[in-house]
Parts: sequence; structure tokens; C-alpha cells
Amino acid sequence: MSGVSSSPSAYFDAASTAPLHPVARQALTAALDEGWADPARLYRSGRQARMLLDAARETVAEVLGARPDEVSFTAGGTQAVQLGVLGALRGRRRTGRHLLHSAVEHSSVLHTAERHAADGGEAESVPVDRLGRVDPARFAAAVRPDTALAVLQSANHEVGTVQPVAETAELLGGVPLLVDAAQSAGRLPVPHGWSLLTASAHKWGGPAGVGVLAVRKGTRFNSALPADEREGGRVPGYVNVPAIVAAAASLRAVRDGAAAENARLHALVERIRREVPRLVPEVEVVGDPVGRLPHLVTFSCLYVDGEVLLTELDRAGFAVSSGSSCTSSTLTPSHVLAAMGVLTEGNVRVSLPAGTTAAQVDRFLTVLPELVARVREPLGLDLPAPAPAPAPAAQRTLVLDELGKRCPLPVIALARRIGEVAPGGLVAVLSDDEAARLDIPAWCQMRGQEYGGEAPAADYGGDRGTAYLVRRTD
Amino acid sequence: MSGVSSSPSAYFDAASTAPLHPVARQALTAALDEGWADPARLYRSGRQARMLLDAARETVAEVLGARPDEVSFTAGGTQAVQLGVLGALRGRRRTGRHLLHSAVEHSSVLHTAERHAADGGEAESVPVDRLGRVDPARFAAAVRPDTALAVLQSANHEVGTVQPVAETAELLGGVPLLVDAAQSAGRLPVPHGWSLLTASAHKWGGPAGVGVLAVRKGTRFNSALPADEREGGRVPGYVNVPAIVAAAASLRAVRDGAAAENARLHALVERIRREVPRLVPEVEVVGDPVGRLPHLVTFSCLYVDGEVLLTELDRAGFAVSSGSSCTSSTLTPSHVLAAMGVLTEGNVRVSLPAGTTAAQVDRFLTVLPELVARVREPLGLDLPAPAPAPAPAAQRTLVLDELGKRCPLPVIALARRIGEVAPGGLVAVLSDDEAARLDIPAWCQMRGQEYGGEAPAADYGGDRGTAYLVRRTD
Repeated sequence: MSGVSSSPSAYFDAASTAPLHPVARQALTAALDEGWADPARLYRSGRQARMLLDAARETVAEVLGARPDEVSFTAGGTQAVQLGVLGALRGRRRTGRHLLHSAVEHSSVLHTAERHAADGGEAESVPVDRLGRVDPARFAAAVRPDTALAVLQSANHEVGTVQPVAETAELLGGVPLLVDAAQSAGRLPVPHGWSLLTASAHKWGGPAGVGVLAVRKGTRFNSALPADEREGGRVPGYVNVPAIVAAAASLRAVRDGAAAENARLHALVERIRREVPRLVPEVEVVGDPVGRLPHLVTFSCLYVDGEVLLTELDRAGFAVSSGSSCTSSTLTPSHVLAAMGVLTEGNVRVSLPAGTTAAQVDRFLTVLPELVARVREPLGLDLPAPAPAPAPAAQRTLVLDELGKRCPLPVIALARRIGEVAPGGLVAVLSDDEAARLDIPAWCQMRGQEYGGEAPAADYGGDRGTAYLVRRTD
Repeated sequence: MSGVSSSPSAYFDAASTAPLHPVARQALTAALDEGWADPARLYRSGRQARMLLDAARETVAEVLGARPDEVSFTAGGTQAVQLGVLGALRGRRRTGRHLLHSAVEHSSVLHTAERHAADGGEAESVPVDRLGRVDPARFAAAVRPDTALAVLQSANHEVGTVQPVAETAELLGGVPLLVDAAQSAGRLPVPHGWSLLTASAHKWGGPAGVGVLAVRKGTRFNSALPADEREGGRVPGYVNVPAIVAAAASLRAVRDGAAAENARLHALVERIRREVPRLVPEVEVVGDPVGRLPHLVTFSCLYVDGEVLLTELDRAGFAVSSGSSCTSSTLTPSHVLAAMGVLTEGNVRVSLPAGTTAAQVDRFLTVLPELVARVREPLGLDLPAPAPAPAPAAQRTLVLDELGKRCPLPVIALARRIGEVAPGGLVAVLSDDEAARLDIPAWCQMRGQEYGGEAPAADYGGDRGTAYLVRRTD
């Protein structure tokens, strides 16, 4: 079949933004007519907007397990995180300025933590395991007397791992916990134990421009932005009633249908998790295979430039995203994959929107192996195993100068040329691409070679960068 | 005609929010289909969203007189002001922490100034004249070597007075000027001289949830919020492309039609300015009669509770707003009216949306006098002039204990009973309502009585509050 490029396209990037839910669109259109006025005004159209806003707040509160007066609407998930984290830190300033978060939080949390540290506070990142999962005891052990706030996501946005939020919350000894539920709200029940909760409507099929910040009664909070009387003093500025109405209506709709849709998507993702390693050589599927989001799976392909693979997939009609270091939107490897210690090379995140069909997934599984093979072909690697060339007995150490070359070139050079040293011999890969620090050890683990750590590249004749040492085992 | 309450309603509160422009609605609907994806993504739907975003940015930049790369979209006007003011202050921190603004800026500016001061900075408010107008020389005279930023609105949101922005900018000696153009963008050209410019789409007929922050190339700026790579690093969070597209399309549409519509609305407002004082006794029309916004007029009615009048107008089908101290949404008198030194009592702001008809204005002018008379009727005041009762020769000073009574009751008591003292005699009005401080002098000015200043209420037997002294002249 040559019809790949003309096939109907499939949007597999729901974790970035979900297509607008039909209920959201209907509600938005209606609310543009009925709820366009300023809900702070006392005249008829203002009161009408206020009633719609109140009803939306009750809906969102009920679905998320909060009281209506605990729920404020923000301009989006990032604003909810920023106002939530900074507001809680300000509210607990007398306790201290220590902020605790997992290493795999969304960038909005990490950026806020960096800002807090730059402003004289302290931010501590708690490591995760190879599945991207926080260990509750380890997380709680980082609590100190001056810990003002802990932040933990409900589930990871890049690899789908569900975090043990309730178990962790129980161990925090009264330190308030902000739960970033952006990836799970609408799909899964909100976990117990939050003091602050954040979410983003466009991730569940609502419109862009609406986030949720819920603050449990009794939680100290002091707005980080100049406050006004809107949204309980937590979120300043005019309230976008039509979009909030649409957000609430779609949240209710997706939650009502979540049980059935989750089961369906879970099975489709299971299929991808199982088939991709069978169909594509040299692939690592990452994230927790059991405690995971129903709709999301991520894998990394050795010897593949993620951006090139994404472009090929786009041409074939598939919209996916990547945490790879090789996509133009980020210059450094995904901090999530780095924290997990997994391969960042050729990374593909597939996140299925509601309504994804088995046929679309089938086609993806048909197309993907061809595309990966096409991307790898010019490299001339004899996959799955590079052919060991007979090495001169004298050559015990091979230096590969990959300085100035971006990933995945250093790993490709290593794979192509490790056969030139005899078993027991050493390859020193000189690189100044940060991704090599993650990908060379990951390659060794996948290929059964022995990773020997780092040394200054200067020790091997390089003028800058790092030497990554690999001992050939086979 | 008894059909007042069943007459079609007229929305006269465009300064709070303008009804959605038909072009905005069309563009929003189309962009929900075409521009729903994440514009930061590289796949087809992401690129399409990016193209729409780029085109919207070019449109807004062109209409506002900026370069596209100077324009960032925010979640609204308040966010634009907050990020603009705080970002400019951070960017100029080495110069100093002195912030200058007019006394009649929008509350988002004043709240941000208060926050800046609470955080160790300094904020200075420059007075305005009785028309609400800044004097450029006086404003510029407040500049100091450590002045980091000056803020001046293009036009006042409560009384419509257009500020001399360009003249002021020329006198600032290089201090960057943030111009809050929320009330004029879409209606009038943006004045020259800004270094930062803010606006709000729902004020010009665009959707809620979109603001504009433009930062002139070369202006130092350091985001006050944790930044990401969105919107030039000035505004964090997911970009709401459909709403931005609608905002840009409607900005273009209203600007294209502004010349004709402004002239029409200007004449309607002129009619209200002329007729209201003729039809309603004891009214003060405030704001600059010449250098004013085309669509906005504000007046204050003596002896009237603003909230009651707004309720009556609402029942008659008119949605208007009020800066009166007596509306439930504010507990203190409008800072704008207070800074101007005009009457705050019974305040009504009429702001006409595009398309307002002469018939609607006619009906307003018919209904208003009846409603004001109805509200005043129970007071038993013999308007326009209170009947002077023959005063006992001995009574040289009358004390009116209005402690615990809200405006307009203290002024009403004064008007009702001043006749009890002889010409030359003194009335001491004891009040603990802040509005009295503004309204009693304003009443004296309107009624030709002599205001004698303040004294402690204790001097006149009060247990708290202030005595406002009025000498009867006639």
C-alpha cells in the first residue's frame, strides 16, 4: 500500500492538548450568548453570568472532590501551578522556605521551584526510580522542619506513571501537598491527600484558557500576584465565564464516560506497549507498565533522531510528541527521562484522545517499523547487532571523537565501531552533547556492554567535553 | 406608557466588557476547528495553530503600532498589567525601585503598585485635576534618579478622560512608560511614547481570556513569573490560539469601523452629557467634556444610593455600572472619583457598546429622571433647594449625628436640616463613612455652601469618626 501519506491522520498527542469535546463546544457556544457579561455586576446579564459561574464551580468541585469555595478558576494549568506553589509558599513563610518536589514534575513546577530558589528559597528534587515512580518513604524522608510545601503530580505527563500520592501524603506529617492533576483530571479520580490541587481544562477536552486551583479549607495561602476580589482573592483578573462553563460541562462529560473509555484506551496502549518492541528492533518502552495512565505510552528508539522520526510520523499522518533531546522545542534532554535514567534517544510519546480507534492504532503499528527502519537505513548499521570486525590485537583502546556532533550521532558511532576493539577492550566516546551522558549508559544496558563511567575528554586527546568509557564484553 | 419594565433591555456597560463582536465569534468558531492544537508542536495541526497565532500577532501588532516580536498575548488585561509592571520593575532594578503612576489608574495597576511597595519598593501616585486629567509637567516632575517605571492610562475607565500620554512621555527623560490602553484600544489610535503597552480583548469586543502585553525593543524586561519559552519568555503557559485569533480579528474589525462608530457614539454621549443635568436636578457630570472617550460618560446624583439607582435602572432594562461607594462590589468610594475630588454619591457610568441606537439613549433619558425622582421621593427633600426653616436665633451650631449610617444618608441629613441654622450658622455632620469625606465638600460646592473642613467628632459629642463642618451661606 502506497497510500500512507494520504491516509486519514490520527492525533496521538492528547497529553499536549485534547481535541475540544463536543459538549465543551456546545456549552461554549451557549455560554457566549448567556454568560458573556461580567459576573461581578449586579444587573441582569451580570447575575446570569454569575449563576453560570457558580454552577460551573459546583460541577468542578463535585467531580474533583472539593468544596465549591475551595475551587478557583485560573487562566490555565501553568498559572494554577505557579499561583498554587508560590501562594502556598508565601502562606507558610513562617514555617520556612524549603520546597520539596519530585524530579519528574511538569516544567511549570520546576520553573517555579527555580524561581523560588533564585529568590532566596530552597527547592529540593526527590529522585524517582527507573519507572519514573516516587518512593513514598524516600519522598517523606526529605521533609524537614522548614519544609513549607511538597509537590507531587498525580501521574507523569511524559511516561504515564501514576504516582503514589495518597500513600505519600500520609507520611508528610502535616506538610501541605500540592497535587498537580493535569494529566489525570477527567480520566481518573483525584487521589486523596491534597491540600492544593491543580488541573488544566484543555487536557481533558475543555477549552484552552481555563485551569483549576483548589485550596483545601484551612490551608494557608497568600497570593503571589497582586490580588483583587475575584476568585476568592486567589486569581486576579476578569473571569472568563464562557470558557469556564465549557470546561465544567466537558469535565462532567468525560468523567461520566471515563470508566468505559479508560478500559478501551488501556487495551490499545497495552497493545502498543507489547507490539512496538516486537516490531521495532532496539526499542525501550519506558514508564510503569502497571500503575499507569490509560491513554499514554512512551518508547525510545536507539540510533534515531527523535525529530526526524516525528517528521516522518507526521508525514504518515500521525501527530505524536517527544521528550527526546533531539526535538527543536527543547535543547536539553527531557528531565523526566533523565531522572529515570532511561534512553532519551528517538523518544516517542503516544497519548490517545478519547475515541481513538483500534484501526488507527493498527495503522500506527504498521507504519512505525517502516519509518524507524527508513530513518536508520542511511546509518548503515546492521541491526540488531553491529558486526564485530576483527580488531588488531594491539588496539585495546579506541577513541571516537564525536565532539560537536549532536545525538544520536555519538551513540551511532559507538554502535558502529565497538567491534573494532577486541572483547575486553575500551572505547572512549568524546562528546559535548549532554544527551550522551544519558544515552551511552542506556545503550550499554540495552546491548549488554559494560559502561565504565566518565573521564575528562582531555585524557583522550579531546580539547573539551567528556569521555564516556565503554568496555566491550562480548 | 407603562411598558418600561417590558421594554427591550439596553446594555450600557461596554467599559466593563463589550458584547462579543460578530467577527470575533466567527473567528473563534473557525479557530476552534483550525487552531486547536499546541502551536509549539511540529506536526501538521501544531504548525497550523502556529500560523494562525503568527498571523494574529501580526494583526495586533499592526493595529497597535508595534512590531510582531514586541507583542505577547496574556490571559487578560490584568495579567498584562501585572506582568508588564512587575517585569519592567525587575528589568530596571539596578536603576531603582521607584514606581510612578497616576492616581486614577485601573485597580490592577494600583494593586500591583501596592504589592511592589509591600515587597520593599516604592510607589508614588501623582494627583489629577478635577477632570481626572494628569498634568504632564507635574507627572514628569515626580521622576527621580531611581524611578524605574512610570505608568499612565491612555484614557480613564471610569470617567472617560483621555490622558496626555505623548506629551507626558516626552518629559520623562528616558524612564520607560507603561501605557494601559485597555479602555481605548480598538477605539482610538495608541498614543506615542510607550515602552510597554497593555490591553484587554474583551473590552474591544474580543473574547475574554486574551490580553496584550507589548514591550518595545530595547526595553529591559525580566519576567516576574517563572518563565518558559512561550510568548517570548514574557508570559508563561499554554497559548490560547482560538481566543487570540478571535481577539485579533475583532480588533481589526472594530478599528476599521472606529471612525464612523466613534462619531456616532460621541454624539450620543454628548446628548447624555447635555440632557442629564437638564432633566435631573442636583446632578454632576464628571470627567473631561472635551478630551474624552467617545462612548463613556459618568454622572453623580445627590441624595441617591448608587446601588438602589442601579437596581432601578436594571429593572427598567438598563445595564450600567457605578463607581459609587454605595455599590456592593466596593466598600470604599471609587479611587478615581476621590482623586478628582468630585461627588461619589449616586454615581452612574454609562458606556455605550458599538451599535447603540439613538432610541435606546432616548429611552434612557426618559426613564432616568423618573427613577431618580422615585429613589429620592421617600427622603422628602424638596428639591432642588431644601426649604430653609426659620432658625431660632440662638442656634448657631447644629450637630447631626450620622455615625453608623452609610452614604448617602449623611448628605441627605445635611441637605434636609441645614435650613435649621441661620445664615452664617454652622452644621457639624458626624460620620464614620469614608464617602462623607468626599461627598460633603462636593455637596457644598454644588449647593454654594461653605465647607469648613474636618474636626474630630469628639469635639461635637461623637464617640468616634469625623465632624464635617459646613457653614450656611444663604
